[in-house]
Amino acid sequence: MSESAERYARHQARMARKKALIDEKIAQAQDEYGLLLVHSGNGKGKSSSAFGMVARALGHGIKVGVVQFIKGAASTGEEAFFRRFPEEVSYHVMGEGFTWETQDRQRDIAKAQQAWDVARALLNDESIGLVVLDELNIALKYGYLQLDAVLADIQARPLLQHVVVTGRGALDGMIDAADTVTEMSLVKHAFKAGVKAQKGIEF
Amino acid sequence: MSESAERYARHQARMARKKALIDEKIAQAQDEYGLLLVHSGNGKGKSSSAFGMVARALGHGIKVGVVQFIKGAASTGEEAFFRRFPEEVSYHVMGEGFTWETQDRQRDIAKAQQAWDVARALLNDESIGLVVLDELNIALKYGYLQLDAVLADIQARPLLQHVVVTGRGALDGMIDAADTVTEMSLVKHAFKAGVKAQKGIEF
Repeated sequence: MSESAERYARHQARMARKKALIDEKIAQAQDEYGLLLVHSGNGKGKSSSAFGMVARALGHGIKVGVVQFIKGAASTGEEAFFRRFPEEVSYHVMGEGFTWETQDRQRDIAKAQQAWDVARALLNDESIGLVVLDELNIALKYGYLQLDAVLADIQARPLLQHVVVTGRGALDGMIDAADTVTEMSLVKHAFKAGVKAQKGIEF
Repeated sequence: MSESAERYARHQARMARKKALIDEKIAQAQDEYGLLLVHSGNGKGKSSSAFGMVARALGHGIKVGVVQFIKGAASTGEEAFFRRFPEEVSYHVMGEGFTWETQDRQRDIAKAQQAWDVARALLNDESIGLVVLDELNIALKYGYLQLDAVLADIQARPLLQHVVVTGRGALDGMIDAADTVTEMSLVKHAFKAGVKAQKGIEF
C-alpha cells in the first residue's frame, strides 16, 4: 500500500473511531486514542506546558518528537535540555524567525514547508507517542502552511499518538479539530513593570 | 545574624528593590531579579508549564526545587522523569490528596505545614534558581496554609531565585504579590466528549 493510501486508510479509521465515540455519547468512554491538544492565547505557558508534557511522556517511557516552527521563539533552555536525550526525543528547530525579522515571505513559506516535512515524518512514526508542533499556529496564521493539508497529516497519524500544537491565534479549523483547547491569558506580566527577560524563565 | 533576622533583611532588601523598580517607571529596566510567577485558572497546563520551565532552567544549568502540595494531583510522569536528575532537581511530593478524599482537615493542615517546611528550606537555598510550588494555591484556598506567612517566606527568598506557584483559585494576595500571572482557561476538553484520561497526557 502506498504511503498516501496508507495515510488515507489511517485517516478513515481515525475519523470512524471519533464518530463512533461521539455517537455513543457515553459519559465514561473506555476508548483510548491519541489526543490533539491546542495551546493558544496571548499569555505565557503555551510552549512551556507542551514541554512539561514532554517531560511527563518521557517519564512514562513514551518517545517524543518536537518541531519548533519559529526559531526565534524557541526556548534555548528547553532545547539544550531535551537534546540530552537523543534516543528519547527527536528535536528539530526549524524556521528562521518571524516574518517581520526576515522580510522575505517566500523564504519563510519555503522554510515552513521544510519544517512541515519534518513534522509529517514524526506524524508517520508509530514509535513516537507524542509530537509537539511548537508555534505551528503562527505559521498557519501567516499562511505559510495550509490548514487543510496540515490537519489531514495530523488526523492521519497513528491512533495512539498525541499531538500538541502551540502558538497564539489558533485558526478556527484547528480549534474545531482539537480534542482539548487551552487558552493562556495574560493577567499580569513583569515586563509591563519594566523587568527585562530572565534567563531560565523567559527563554 | 539569626535565620529569621537574615530572612527579614533579605525581605527588606527585596521590597526596597521592587519599590525602586516601580518608582523608576523605566520602560526597559536593566535590573535582574527572581520572579514570582503564578499559573491559575480552570484550564490545563498550570503544572505542565511549570515543569516546562523546570526543563528550561535545567537547560541553563540552573538547579531546581519542586514541592507538590497535592499528592493526588501530581503527574506521575513528571515525577518519574525529573527524579532522574537528583543532583539538579530536589523533588518533593507532599500532601495526601484532596480533603474530600481524606475527610480529615486537621491531618491535611498538618501535612500542608510539613510541605511548607520543605518549601521554606528550598526558598532559603541560594544554590537553587527555580522553586516550583505545585498546587500551592489549593492549599491556600482551603486555608491549610496562611497566605501572609507563605508570602513572607517567598518574598524573603534569594534575590535571583524564581518561584512558580500553580493551582486554580489563586488568592488575590498571591496575584498582587506576583510579577507574572497567567490564567489557563479551558476552551474545550476531550473529557467532555467522553474520552478517558490518557497516560502521558493527563497524568
